[in-house]
Amino acid sequence: MSKVIANMSMSLDGFIADPGDGIDLLFGWMGNGEVEVPTAVEWATFRMSPASADYMKAAMARVGALIAGRHLYDITHGWGGKHPMGVPVVVVSHSTPAEVPEGFTFVSSVEEAVQVASELAGDKDVVIASAKIAQQALDAGLVDAINVDQVPVLLGEGVRWFENLSKTPVRLSNPTVVEGNGVTHLAYEVVR
Amino acid sequence: MSKVIANMSMSLDGFIADPGDGIDLLFGWMGNGEVEVPTAVEWATFRMSPASADYMKAAMARVGALIAGRHLYDITHGWGGKHPMGVPVVVVSHSTPAEVPEGFTFVSSVEEAVQVASELAGDKDVVIASAKIAQQALDAGLVDAINVDQVPVLLGEGVRWFENLSKTPVRLSNPTVVEGNGVTHLAYEVVR
Repeated sequence: MSKVIANMSMSLDGFIADPGDGIDLLFGWMGNGEVEVPTAVEWATFRMSPASADYMKAAMARVGALIAGRHLYDITHGWGGKHPMGVPVVVVSHSTPAEVPEGFTFVSSVEEAVQVASELAGDKDVVIASAKIAQQALDAGLVDAINVDQVPVLLGEGVRWFENLSKTPVRLSNPTVVEGNGVTHLAYEVVR
Repeated sequence: MSKVIANMSMSLDGFIADPGDGIDLLFGWMGNGEVEVPTAVEWATFRMSPASADYMKAAMARVGALIAGRHLYDITHGWGGKHPMGVPVVVVSHSTPAEVPEGFTFVSSVEEAVQVASELAGDKDVVIASAKIAQQALDAGLVDAINVDQVPVLLGEGVRWFENLSKTPVRLSNPTVVEGNGVTHLAYEVVR
């Protein structure tokens, strides 16, 4: 069944980027292993531990559309026109750029993003890949699952994933756990 | 070998208590199972999942002394005079109460607390059970391991465990993972 999944790499102390939007210490697990995981673009090939590679391949096979915030779209320069996951990307933004690459859709609200992305994904999953969008979707009751790629580091400062939540507590299931190298994959269902 | 371990129950979004110091949603795993884990006091007996019970019994067998902050000492009324772990407790505080129960030692700094607790613990572990004390001990480079009892809930607000850290990033090992019910036990070593 199609699910809406919030997914981020997060430090043990809750940060998904350093104060300058940097992600180096959080994404090491994507390149520290011996198993190649190709993506939809030439400029990105992951090299992961066997456990993370299996986990990532299964997740990539299930994803049908992504939702991102405008900030992430801008700092990645729209992923150069094509997202590594090779699926449609719905961007939540107050404005639409002059040129929108094929495969990208701009919408003005989280609710609209989930609706459009769900249609694009069909029976596959929708993955929310921005912290602020995930926060708003959680508050709107639109998130079915939270997948944390928990990285063994305390960053001390930066951009927090879970902040400004207004509909708390949010109860979660026990997670399924996959132990990678430089990451622990924790996959929770939201209990409604 | 004796280690200094920071240990707390923490929500997925990083809180170790709600805004009113409440801990109900974080400590459910200590009472939701079928295996009894006795403590050193009559008023506290845990009932845990088999996995958590094994994990807790092993941890309790290793602990030789606890370090707590004055706030925790006060809100628990000094655990009624005896801590459930049945080991000496070193309390970090600016002042010493008029009556100090047997088994409690008051000190004025985190450095002194670790020194005194380590002597009391001998070859057993020292466990730091207060968020602020753990923060200060991390900054002072005195923490060998971080044991997180990670609870599947987003609290949204409350008291954060990891805050105001000045010596970051703190790199951690891959955790050992024990999957309980209502808790995932993640045990990290601090990488120096």
